[in-house]
Amino acid sequence: MLIIMHVNSTEEQIERVKQKIQKLTLTPHVIPGRLRCAIGITGNSGPISPDHFKNLPGVVQCLPVTKPYKLISREVRQEDTVIDLDSVRIGGKEIVIIAGPCSVENEIQIFTIAEKLAKMGVKLLRGGAYKPRTSPYSFQGLGEKGLKLLASVRDKTGIKIVSEAIDSESLDMVAEYVDIVQIGARNMYNYSLLKKVGQLNKPVLLKRGLSATLEEFLMAAEYIVCQGNFQVILCERGIRTFSDYSRNTLDMNVVPTIKQISHLPIIVDPSHASGDRKTVLPLARGAIAVGADGVIVEVHHEPENALSDGAQSLYPMQFKQLLIQLNQIASIMNRECSLQR
Amino acid sequence: MLIIMHVNSTEEQIERVKQKIQKLTLTPHVIPGRLRCAIGITGNSGPISPDHFKNLPGVVQCLPVTKPYKLISREVRQEDTVIDLDSVRIGGKEIVIIAGPCSVENEIQIFTIAEKLAKMGVKLLRGGAYKPRTSPYSFQGLGEKGLKLLASVRDKTGIKIVSEAIDSESLDMVAEYVDIVQIGARNMYNYSLLKKVGQLNKPVLLKRGLSATLEEFLMAAEYIVCQGNFQVILCERGIRTFSDYSRNTLDMNVVPTIKQISHLPIIVDPSHASGDRKTVLPLARGAIAVGADGVIVEVHHEPENALSDGAQSLYPMQFKQLLIQLNQIASIMNRECSLQR
Amino acid sequence: MLIIMHVNSTEEQIERVKQKIQKLTLTPHVIPGRLRCAIGITGNSGPISPDHFKNLPGVVQCLPVTKPYKLISREVRQEDTVIDLDSVRIGGKEIVIIAGPCSVENEIQIFTIAEKLAKMGVKLLRGGAYKPRTSPYSFQGLGEKGLKLLASVRDKTGIKIVSEAIDSESLDMVAEYVDIVQIGARNMYNYSLLKKVGQLNKPVLLKRGLSATLEEFLMAAEYIVCQGNFQVILCERGIRTFSDYSRNTLDMNVVPTIKQISHLPIIVDPSHASGDRKTVLPLARGAIAVGADGVIVEVHHEPENALSDGAQSLYPMQFKQLLIQLNQIASIMNRECSLQR
Amino acid sequence: MLIIMHVNSTEEQIERVKQKIQKLTLTPHVIPGRLRCAIGITGNSGPISPDHFKNLPGVVQCLPVTKPYKLISREVRQEDTVIDLDSVRIGGKEIVIIAGPCSVENEIQIFTIAEKLAKMGVKLLRGGAYKPRTSPYSFQGLGEKGLKLLASVRDKTGIKIVSEAIDSESLDMVAEYVDIVQIGARNMYNYSLLKKVGQLNKPVLLKRGLSATLEEFLMAAEYIVCQGNFQVILCERGIRTFSDYSRNTLDMNVVPTIKQISHLPIIVDPSHASGDRKTVLPLARGAIAVGADGVIVEVHHEPENALSDGAQSLYPMQFKQLLIQLNQIASIMNRECSLQR
Repeated sequence: MLIIMHVNSTEEQIERVKQKIQKLTLTPHVIPGRLRCAIGITGNSGPISPDHFKNLPGVVQCLPVTKPYKLISREVRQEDTVIDLDSVRIGGKEIVIIAGPCSVENEIQIFTIAEKLAKMGVKLLRGGAYKPRTSPYSFQGLGEKGLKLLASVRDKTGIKIVSEAIDSESLDMVAEYVDIVQIGARNMYNYSLLKKVGQLNKPVLLKRGLSATLEEFLMAAEYIVCQGNFQVILCERGIRTFSDYSRNTLDMNVVPTIKQISHLPIIVDPSHASGDRKTVLPLARGAIAVGADGVIVEVHHEPENALSDGAQSLYPMQFKQLLIQLNQIASIMNRECSLQR
Repeated sequence: MLIIMHVNSTEEQIERVKQKIQKLTLTPHVIPGRLRCAIGITGNSGPISPDHFKNLPGVVQCLPVTKPYKLISREVRQEDTVIDLDSVRIGGKEIVIIAGPCSVENEIQIFTIAEKLAKMGVKLLRGGAYKPRTSPYSFQGLGEKGLKLLASVRDKTGIKIVSEAIDSESLDMVAEYVDIVQIGARNMYNYSLLKKVGQLNKPVLLKRGLSATLEEFLMAAEYIVCQGNFQVILCERGIRTFSDYSRNTLDMNVVPTIKQISHLPIIVDPSHASGDRKTVLPLARGAIAVGADGVIVEVHHEPENALSDGAQSLYPMQFKQLLIQLNQIASIMNRECSLQR
Repeated sequence: MLIIMHVNSTEEQIERVKQKIQKLTLTPHVIPGRLRCAIGITGNSGPISPDHFKNLPGVVQCLPVTKPYKLISREVRQEDTVIDLDSVRIGGKEIVIIAGPCSVENEIQIFTIAEKLAKMGVKLLRGGAYKPRTSPYSFQGLGEKGLKLLASVRDKTGIKIVSEAIDSESLDMVAEYVDIVQIGARNMYNYSLLKKVGQLNKPVLLKRGLSATLEEFLMAAEYIVCQGNFQVILCERGIRTFSDYSRNTLDMNVVPTIKQISHLPIIVDPSHASGDRKTVLPLARGAIAVGADGVIVEVHHEPENALSDGAQSLYPMQFKQLLIQLNQIASIMNRECSLQR
Repeated sequence: MLIIMHVNSTEEQIERVKQKIQKLTLTPHVIPGRLRCAIGITGNSGPISPDHFKNLPGVVQCLPVTKPYKLISREVRQEDTVIDLDSVRIGGKEIVIIAGPCSVENEIQIFTIAEKLAKMGVKLLRGGAYKPRTSPYSFQGLGEKGLKLLASVRDKTGIKIVSEAIDSESLDMVAEYVDIVQIGARNMYNYSLLKKVGQLNKPVLLKRGLSATLEEFLMAAEYIVCQGNFQVILCERGIRTFSDYSRNTLDMNVVPTIKQISHLPIIVDPSHASGDRKTVLPLARGAIAVGADGVIVEVHHEPENALSDGAQSLYPMQFKQLLIQLNQIASIMNRECSLQR
């Protein structure tokens, strides 16, 4: 059930609706829009009668919500969600480019890469400090030391930071240092972690699980949003299929499909999808052309020496080319890409 | 083994190399290039010594070929294969658009659609006369009657015809009437049929099988080419995965990957990949942006009454929009799309 | 629609029902049962009124059939289909073991293997004369020469022959020489070939396609049966998934599921599913334990020299062990396995 | 690297090897065997020279370990790991049956089911108190209240308890109350949680992830074992494939394959694999026949009223049949199944 409020509804009226919902032992979710606000209801097992609300002051309409995903649905909020990070807005007119190495390896590495990227106009730096690795014997990331390096990169260059949290402990740490908290593909089903990022007041980049259906992906976002954090950026990064020439199979169709279902922004990770830098550039172009709000791309100044994922990391020169090409595609899509050329 | 001939090598010299190959009970394949010709050798189980050929007149170099696919490989022919159909060239600078209904249903239907498409500048019409259907009780196509309708459409509009052959019998029929013979996804492993189209002197549109690996797809093309027919157009149309919101999962990455491996043109079928007209347009844009040589798209003037695949068929108005958008993407890709707007 | 006839209905009465069906431009399929006969109707697009038939003499009941598969369904025939080959009955109480090499390679090879198998009590020999191979440059089978060798093996040992047809031409040949015609996984979607084997009066072993859904598999059988050939043996041989440690993923669940839906016998091919002889034996045990009517297993006297699929071929000694173990499982399943020990 | 100690090596000698390893800044893992002990080394990036150890007293041999999984490998420990829970031993001669409802719902439910199972001889009860659910709005389990009910069931019936932990918080709780901690499929990639259960002194039931490769599954176990907890029971529960008639595709082949690679016990969950009680029984039989050490099966006294997974829960009568049949298969496999009949 979604309750649509008047354009001029007062805070008092909204409060009254919330109280009425709570009295029914259900949960209200206030969803602010540009013109008017709506109030979503969750916690019901069956349908709720609109009679409870339709005569309350300020209420315009009571709409049933028919999908399993509620708060992330366009039924509940028609306008696109735009996440504002001062220097960059995600999900708006601008195409967003997140770039950087797979892992923070050391001071020289991260500063070298970040400065190259900042000079090209990149405003969001990726870099893992906590790495979920298939082998317990592989490099697991620098941990807090890596986060501190990222923070000092931000201090020096002004670039904003995206980094992954892999559990409750690292989440506290990551949330303290970064601008966007990433939840990786392996943790998309980690509902306890999703609930916790749902309680942050910080944007979350949620990657699709290796074998997640569309519905599971959207429900993972719902787990975050229903805790109160609406700042979720979805990310398609390839799914696991029989096709073995690439690391994963990038499911491009999910982009326009999600755009129809949900108001959340969605970006694409061509680097993990491909696993080979040779096809990262065309996949990035394809992503913008199908309607993605941006891409997240791995770049390393010395990929052959990278501690992880070197084969899929672009050289800085290749990344520059990517920027030029994405700018061109963006203009056709009626979008902007405010990078230096 | 690939034998590279001099720019000025004579027919006689080429003939002599061929005879030498045949004497070793192997098979020569003459592969003409823009500048010079090369001669591929197949039929060997192990490596062949270059000593047999290196001193023959006209021979420049003897290269070992290391991949299982030989004749379709860029190792063997570096330039792109371009298939010339007079009014349209596939694999060249121009982006190719093939459009039309899933099946030929009757005279009014096919003429109505074809005339609309021809007016928009479409030069290649698709339309099935033989339909491989999951159920023996479903509409199986009009057969030869359908092919005759397609031929009369060509006579009237000048549009070229693409239609599917499903077995030896229909192949004889289809090859007589159409300009490009289509081999559908279900027949990609039908090696007997592939050998037969390999003996035609007619372009072949080869669709990737539902569960074909990259190597299997390329080897299916090799089956055709090694019979002498180099006019093969590859087509990615989505693979079968766990992902169930779309009919298939379009594997976009295959396009730039194949462009690196093979000289054959490759197009994309967003209609069968999606199964829902709502995402055909963005997928078509994505296809051109990743580097495809064209798209094949289902269009119907009354999709709600189509005998097959109505849900994925575009309305003519939507198709017009697609043309405009693909033109824009093509220009960024440094390609042309010579359709009327 | 299924028309159930009286236990004592006459041929004349059956004929009259058939004529009535044909008058409605539909197709009758007479399905003999142990007690009584039923007549299936296909060719209708919507439901048929029972009024046409319910008053005809000999008609007991008119049942609507709700599934897309009709004639292969238990709705239409409750008793198990048993295929009788004199020395062996498939789908009955007996567990059936088909064994032999992947390909017929030469006289010594096929006689050596067949004699070893016959001595162990095996009554059905597999061996490919026409091989669908991924590469056009791989060994494609001995063709008719291979079929002749198989026939002479039968003459000498009394063992019955199972061999694959890959197209119309080879079908004519194969059908002439063998006792059971095999349609391989790659041809499961080759509906033209299915129709042709549907017109044979010979048992057909139909393998599930690499990416065939349950419904597609059953509909492929329906293609055969609706042409009049009810002697179809289904075969699960593993499907294509992301799981890469084995050649395919054996979908054991399909066995009990099909047993509930269809009256056709179903066997399992653990050799192609695994790709490695080390797990063929346990998978064969599992197959009988889930309720399969038998197994088809690759055996070679010198697997290391096999022209195809050596890694998955059992040594004769391993096969003997397999026989002993399957006998034990069969007895628990209340089935027989009449092999020599 | 694996260091094999003398049958009569002393604690002092073992200690000295450990110290030597630590001096190289590597990690020693003492692996006790029936006859002798071995010491695994992890933490090295490249090969280690045996020269460091071969002359130390008590050392018999220094073996390189070539697989990415080390401690769980048969290279490191040839004998089967047997987990001893007093009343029941997992991985030994006995076939283990774990049964119970998907979720603990209330006192009457769990006592009713547990008592029926105990009477039939079941020694291990499953029942979820913390449930990872796709929707944040679905029943999430009773939490600690559920664990207390399970503990009181154990007090009354003597049955041992298996229940799932979904995060650090629930792990502390679950480990306090239960006998075997379950890590569900959705958490197989949750390496932080795996490390934590690796520090418990309690058996762990580790389910394979929905899209986990064999190597990823084994490496997840390695995460636990390398923390010191060798009591890991692997569980195959079906993988995600295109095949849509069942909830998942049970990958039976993984059982004999893992038995060859690893010394850890492995059981099968036919209930989650199938999703439909109609095929749970045959799949359970198949599991024992391919060599699994047991099964975990959902049983509910009123499946139609279950709060989760009712469709796949067996009725107690069906479960009784399952016991009888598994007993028979076990005897053929030369194993025991000490349940009442």
